[in-house]
Amino acid sequence: MGPIGKTGREPAARDDPTTLQGQPPVTNSERTHPAHAPMHQFPVLDGELVIGGVPLSRLAARVGRTPFYAYDRRLLAARVTELRSSLPAGLKLHYAMKANPMPALVCHMARLVDGIDVASAGELRVALDAGADPAEISFAGPGKGPGELRQAVAAGILINIESPREIPELAAISSDTGCAARVAVRVNPDFELKSSGMKMGGGARQFGVDAEQVPELLAEIGRSGLAFEGFHLFAGSQNLRAEAIVEAQCKSYELALKLARFAPADVRFLNLGGGFGIPYFPGENRLDLATVAGGLAVIADRAARELPAARLVIELGRYLVGEAGIYVTRIIDRKLSRGQIFLVVDGGLHHHLAASGNFGQVIRKNYPVTIGNRIGAPTSIAASVVGPLCTPLDLLADRMPLADAQPGDLVVIFQSGAYGFSASPQSFLGHPACVEIIV
Amino acid sequence: MGPIGKTGREPAARDDPTTLQGQPPVTNSERTHPAHAPMHQFPVLDGELVIGGVPLSRLAARVGRTPFYAYDRRLLAARVTELRSSLPAGLKLHYAMKANPMPALVCHMARLVDGIDVASAGELRVALDAGADPAEISFAGPGKGPGELRQAVAAGILINIESPREIPELAAISSDTGCAARVAVRVNPDFELKSSGMKMGGGARQFGVDAEQVPELLAEIGRSGLAFEGFHLFAGSQNLRAEAIVEAQCKSYELALKLARFAPADVRFLNLGGGFGIPYFPGENRLDLATVAGGLAVIADRAARELPAARLVIELGRYLVGEAGIYVTRIIDRKLSRGQIFLVVDGGLHHHLAASGNFGQVIRKNYPVTIGNRIGAPTSIAASVVGPLCTPLDLLADRMPLADAQPGDLVVIFQSGAYGFSASPQSFLGHPACVEIIV
Repeated sequence: MGPIGKTGREPAARDDPTTLQGQPPVTNSERTHPAHAPMHQFPVLDGELVIGGVPLSRLAARVGRTPFYAYDRRLLAARVTELRSSLPAGLKLHYAMKANPMPALVCHMARLVDGIDVASAGELRVALDAGADPAEISFAGPGKGPGELRQAVAAGILINIESPREIPELAAISSDTGCAARVAVRVNPDFELKSSGMKMGGGARQFGVDAEQVPELLAEIGRSGLAFEGFHLFAGSQNLRAEAIVEAQCKSYELALKLARFAPADVRFLNLGGGFGIPYFPGENRLDLATVAGGLAVIADRAARELPAARLVIELGRYLVGEAGIYVTRIIDRKLSRGQIFLVVDGGLHHHLAASGNFGQVIRKNYPVTIGNRIGAPTSIAASVVGPLCTPLDLLADRMPLADAQPGDLVVIFQSGAYGFSASPQSFLGHPACVEIIV
Repeated sequence: MGPIGKTGREPAARDDPTTLQGQPPVTNSERTHPAHAPMHQFPVLDGELVIGGVPLSRLAARVGRTPFYAYDRRLLAARVTELRSSLPAGLKLHYAMKANPMPALVCHMARLVDGIDVASAGELRVALDAGADPAEISFAGPGKGPGELRQAVAAGILINIESPREIPELAAISSDTGCAARVAVRVNPDFELKSSGMKMGGGARQFGVDAEQVPELLAEIGRSGLAFEGFHLFAGSQNLRAEAIVEAQCKSYELALKLARFAPADVRFLNLGGGFGIPYFPGENRLDLATVAGGLAVIADRAARELPAARLVIELGRYLVGEAGIYVTRIIDRKLSRGQIFLVVDGGLHHHLAASGNFGQVIRKNYPVTIGNRIGAPTSIAASVVGPLCTPLDLLADRMPLADAQPGDLVVIFQSGAYGFSASPQSFLGHPACVEIIV
């Protein structure tokens, strides 16, 4: 019973009890433990979290069921506004929709940002349906199939080449369809993004083309008659250290500038990636956006002189949508087992794999969790929030200080707008599907 | 770009290069590294793996696409036969369908085993559709909702009570529907299953009722007029140490015997769980079934005298189906990045999360992987098998010795019959859905 776990995952003292929203810790001994960053993005009314202007319990009634994901339109727009006011004028902002491909959310984002980055033909269809301009859609992915490449050429979007293999395939499609494939080169840089949650460049990678192979690739693109537009560099993701991001973006720019000398045409597109992180775990703080913006301003100034034809782009997924979303699940039982309180909820890892600690995490840590209809109540219990699955992996909060919650109350997991719904094994164990709403 | 990874997952020297199917290692230095257990369950014909009598490339042509999961009916039946010939006569064998809920596979299994264990109302529907006898279906889960309990009572299946809360709910449903709910008590034992991949009993747990609370719960069941039938004990899963399983099942039996004195009726059902593991990773060996059978024979003898009305049951999921299934994905590119070979395939973690190391594993290790249409060819390359997703988590084999594979070849991941398809985030990144077949 239970999935593939090979290692005993004891609910042992792996995680620190943490405080949330400035509420006092349960005991004095916890004062020294790191806390979650404050989650103040959603207002509170009469002890209830308010999403898109609707108090949580009313929202749950409107949805008609739990569990659900809810994304706040206002917060999504506010994040874009914040970025636009901080970042250099003219810098293009793309949404990497892999973070959250909900069609209605992509529609909302398509009106706010300058372009959409897709990772598959399936995402391309959603982006086009959302009304995104094909001229401003780009497509990256290490294993693009022949059918996907054909769809991309037919749609007229920009294709980030990640392998020499794609050049003859695209040339054949171009000649077959009469549309010259628009291409950029995704470069695997010769450096890494320091302190990144997930390294995606430097060393040996499946992503992009090693920087040292790019000059030859550019010549081949020229010979093949593809419409070269520029470069895509992406060093890593989920980085909370502004200095590391600035350094990686500077190096990316330098590398692109060096490679531009080998390009068969002017660089008209330069995607420096993103990697902006959001705080998930105790001790993590929000990114210092001013520092990142300062670094990008220097790059934008140089690019205006050195690559005057280039649109400078950053590509953000998680940073745009992650903090605007919550996962809501209802308590169906409160159990006491050998002194430990378990709040059994109707949602779990099948809907929110990352919050269970099973999506790229080596050590499980608690997401910020609260009782959404008891905000401000004292965190008088330390409880584990577990789902309905027959596996010990189905753990959404491990002995966290929480309000004194009861069956019927709504458990909220913050920071759930990215890599939540779409990144979870929804059909595992045959429970009802989860719902997504945007408010 | 990429999901929630918070920790750099370098493709560093975490995993040992391993040998498969007795093929020679790539270098002498690897002789000291642990190897995968041999995967001899599928025959080989002209260098191709044969599944259900069909060579792999013909099977792929029949499916008409990759990736797919394939399960071998003959192997499923052979595993049941092997168990029946080893285990004591009269011991009932249940299939825990959470391991693989594919409807056609559940149909096949329902004809082979003595009962089906379900973990949700969704699984119950599949089990009933598969023709399983409701008298021999049991339902466990720590968060059974009121609707699910009602469906279970209406279906006439056995409900494993895991919380005092369920008793008044079931009593109300029984009086409302006129069917007395059939119940067993799931006991959280006061010991643990040693060496278990996943501990599910002992200490504080969301599963079952602490052994010391069970006498009072049994009295309450009696007062509530529910139809008491017995006990369910489940100490853990994915255990490869026969002695540990024997010890846990002995202790489970002793505990059940002790608790039976408090029962409101004769014990007619005693589910001792399972926990039988299969080898996934280098250095793991197949379970010594004879030792487990010996332990169960002692218990069966005692039960015949001490609990004469009881059907003795073991419940197996992974052990029944895991080794009979493979995941098949096609190579679409072979890339060289800074000296490392990457085989980019059309499937990945979105179809097979466990093989990527993101489902309950703390340290990622390679599943047994082979090139299914080049069996017997020398393992002349060390390659990483990666999927099409824009995330470094999408890694199916990390620098494994493999045959010299090219685009078009079929990569096979063994030991994929359990917790594969249903336990993966299929919709992540919008790639085409995976197919399952049973041959």
